[in-house]
Amino acid sequence: MAFTFQMNHSIKFNHDEGLLKKAELLTPPLINKEKKLVRLGELTKDITKFEGWTIKTLDMKIDDKEYKKDDSLILDFGNHYVGRFAIDINSVGSPMDAPLYIRLRFAEVAAELSHESEEYDGWLARGWIQEEFIHLDELPTLLSLPRRYAFRYVEIKVLDTSPKWSVVFSNPRLITESCVDSDNLPFPKIEDMELAAIYQVGLKTLEDCMTDVFEDGPKRDRRLWLGDLRLQALANYESFKQNDLVKRCLYLFGAMTTEDGRISANVFTKPYPIPDDTFLFEYSLFFISVLHDYLAQEDDEELLGDLYPIAKKQINTSLTYIQEDGKVCADESYPVFVDWSTEFDKTTCLQAIMIYVLRQFIELAQKAGDFGITEYYESVLDKLVNYSKNNLFDSEKNLFKTEKVEYNIASQVWMVLAGVFPKEMNRKIMMTTIEKLFPIKNIATPYMYHHVTEALFVAGLKEEATELMKNYWGQMIRLGADTFWEAFDPDKPDYSPYGSPIISSYCHAWSCTPVYLISKYLHREE
Amino acid sequence: MAFTFQMNHSIKFNHDEGLLKKAELLTPPLINKEKKLVRLGELTKDITKFEGWTIKTLDMKIDDKEYKKDDSLILDFGNHYVGRFAIDINSVGSPMDAPLYIRLRFAEVAAELSHESEEYDGWLARGWIQEEFIHLDELPTLLSLPRRYAFRYVEIKVLDTSPKWSVVFSNPRLITESCVDSDNLPFPKIEDMELAAIYQVGLKTLEDCMTDVFEDGPKRDRRLWLGDLRLQALANYESFKQNDLVKRCLYLFGAMTTEDGRISANVFTKPYPIPDDTFLFEYSLFFISVLHDYLAQEDDEELLGDLYPIAKKQINTSLTYIQEDGKVCADESYPVFVDWSTEFDKTTCLQAIMIYVLRQFIELAQKAGDFGITEYYESVLDKLVNYSKNNLFDSEKNLFKTEKVEYNIASQVWMVLAGVFPKEMNRKIMMTTIEKLFPIKNIATPYMYHHVTEALFVAGLKEEATELMKNYWGQMIRLGADTFWEAFDPDKPDYSPYGSPIISSYCHAWSCTPVYLISKYLHREE
Repeated sequence: MAFTFQMNHSIKFNHDEGLLKKAELLTPPLINKEKKLVRLGELTKDITKFEGWTIKTLDMKIDDKEYKKDDSLILDFGNHYVGRFAIDINSVGSPMDAPLYIRLRFAEVAAELSHESEEYDGWLARGWIQEEFIHLDELPTLLSLPRRYAFRYVEIKVLDTSPKWSVVFSNPRLITESCVDSDNLPFPKIEDMELAAIYQVGLKTLEDCMTDVFEDGPKRDRRLWLGDLRLQALANYESFKQNDLVKRCLYLFGAMTTEDGRISANVFTKPYPIPDDTFLFEYSLFFISVLHDYLAQEDDEELLGDLYPIAKKQINTSLTYIQEDGKVCADESYPVFVDWSTEFDKTTCLQAIMIYVLRQFIELAQKAGDFGITEYYESVLDKLVNYSKNNLFDSEKNLFKTEKVEYNIASQVWMVLAGVFPKEMNRKIMMTTIEKLFPIKNIATPYMYHHVTEALFVAGLKEEATELMKNYWGQMIRLGADTFWEAFDPDKPDYSPYGSPIISSYCHAWSCTPVYLISKYLHREE
Repeated sequence: MAFTFQMNHSIKFNHDEGLLKKAELLTPPLINKEKKLVRLGELTKDITKFEGWTIKTLDMKIDDKEYKKDDSLILDFGNHYVGRFAIDINSVGSPMDAPLYIRLRFAEVAAELSHESEEYDGWLARGWIQEEFIHLDELPTLLSLPRRYAFRYVEIKVLDTSPKWSVVFSNPRLITESCVDSDNLPFPKIEDMELAAIYQVGLKTLEDCMTDVFEDGPKRDRRLWLGDLRLQALANYESFKQNDLVKRCLYLFGAMTTEDGRISANVFTKPYPIPDDTFLFEYSLFFISVLHDYLAQEDDEELLGDLYPIAKKQINTSLTYIQEDGKVCADESYPVFVDWSTEFDKTTCLQAIMIYVLRQFIELAQKAGDFGITEYYESVLDKLVNYSKNNLFDSEKNLFKTEKVEYNIASQVWMVLAGVFPKEMNRKIMMTTIEKLFPIKNIATPYMYHHVTEALFVAGLKEEATELMKNYWGQMIRLGADTFWEAFDPDKPDYSPYGSPIISSYCHAWSCTPVYLISKYLHREE
């Protein structure tokens, strides 16, 4: 997740120290595994890969060569990892009569190494570019970088030695940082090789986004977003089952609400928990979804007792946006996200998401024993559903429309997920969607593709859902992905949302969901 | 000292562990003093200063401003220092949603900040440029840089924050590193204000070049050169009297000779003592001079016993370059330095330096009780002197000529310093030099200017020597120097020998000698 900037400095937050303490106690230990260099590589043109670049294997060892000014090498660790980097460096020739000056670049995908950071002029902070300039005054030395990077490739460029000596590198290694280890996870039997590969890459994506919280991207953003958490948690239940991490994240969000009770769209955890001053309407509501989904996995009365009042506060805040006739009205100060695209009308999605979450909330209320209020929320739900059926559904077209009378894919998808109609009707709506609104255009996030795919599954269109997964996530793999990306538009495979791949995240949590989709809808088959 | 590159990888060195141990035991403790920020500054045009730049004082405090992308500030510590830098950094505004990315540049003189490192394309290693690019993932933090820098000014440029927050800086400090402290040194009474200023700046130059050895330049080169040591030691005897440091340096050179007995022109001390594979004819010989000068300060029979054989080896090696007629013949494989300039014939300088050092060696031999050989060396000395008088001195012109029949300043200077003629004759030679060969042209090193000045003093031309000091070292001060520079040509005051001031050293040991010259020839007046 990354989004346009909101700045709300004046908003004050509560800090519930009791809940923060519970979050802290749930901090998982990190697993650190040493990964050795697999091979040296060379940046090479390949039109079949992302942006036309790949890393070709070089038939040489790292210490085969003495490096001088302007020489460079590319280390290939064979897969995507998140962690710290270290390498031994020495000089050969005359005594070292000047500092060694080197540049290191860490890349998740080959294309990043084809761009120079000086050229980057986007709106996202250039501090995210994984590039370091290092002086070493004394050799030999072990260069052990203090920062964490997300990478498969490390390019080292010698900016200068002196004419009198050269530099030699040896024993590069990376120490991983994750709270889970896919090596210890039995891989499910997936007959379809393509789906097996998609599952595998999704699992690696999820693994590399799990540290002391569910991060959205280990290269860029590196924080806990509530909308991303919802999807990561679903994938986690189907794989690592690190359910305490979900619980920790729920406590983090629940512990830091605004003075008027709203939950921030994301939180930072370093150096200590800090809620961001960004608010998204449905992200606040998804606190309910995450809690609901967690409690489907675990009986946890303490958690429910702690967080139910906060969940209720979210639903009550959102109810103030519902008109008398049952229409949910968005507000610019509390925007709805749905997808990065701002080119489609999201009013019907908002209506559907409200229904989706309210259903989950009513379940929570019952679990929490808050029976007295159920009737009221059921009546609100009816009103929302009735408004949707009567005012938004176009029975001639067999599609939902929006306030601006748009028939967009996202509206159908969320109305299906919200279960406004029964399964057979949903099937018809999604069939119509495929027939009339497909192919998907102008959607670039795996986040929205996830919802489209899940809606197809929910509507019983298993083959179509599978085909979409293969066309979308599968296409990233064909383009060279080791982990799934923050953004991908199959129509514009080389598109970088921030103008340069050096700032994009190529391991992004909200794209890990094939782990969940395959497990739930294909693997756990009757 | 810095010089063209010699590469002699195949030369093998002896390592006398006994002498190295003695050198190690003489390592002085470093004095670390904290220096606070004096003021903020701004780079400003000033045609009266070096390269037309100065730092104007800004009437604001460091925490008066919140810094955003592309903002920068210049810290002025009020004087030149050698040490480490630290600063507190925090963010203000929304939570810190991206790493802070900053660039730090450390400058000895204002002009350095007017140049960008990307533009540098010289032959000296760009690793010397005092510039760092730093990512900080978490704020607040104490940024404490691990490397040592030589600087008065620190420029911090914010390369990026994010649109959501700004950065604030506070409490910048530097921790000095020197083995001496001029604050604890009584300042001599020097009536002439101009000379007092020259002495003061010379003393700061020497102080900032004294760490675990006598360094040539704390910004660039950072090592022990034998020719520079000779001058530093002389200035040290007149000021800090840190004589054990001279002794340590003598042991370092003496401990690591080539298999054929020669002493390297310079040694490195980190991570452990390493002799460079650069050899200069008179630098090897100056081992004798430094030993001779040290023993004029200290009775040290152990040192003499340890190092006399090594001194003798140097003189004996050099004797092989003397022809039957008494002429010293240079050899490309063992070049003579005299000055950076390669535009004048150095043959007569070489002859004179040989005489200068041989006289000192004969004194050493007597001190060492090596009486049996004195007569032989005296005869060689006579032959050298006679050749000089008969073949090199032009009595009509009253000047020494060279093999290529050049009448250059350096030849006169070194022949006077060598005492080939008595004082009255030397006076005439230097008077003629002033009349016929001055003004000095194409000499850019304070090293050679030192010898010219001392020759004037030795010849009894005190006023002329004083005037030269004021015109040369005084002019650096008028151009803004806090310490004296590696190179300076009064005819080309903006000249940077490596094409850019960012690579030049503006605190360079061989320029500290006014401390010695003023003390010996003016202050210690009859």
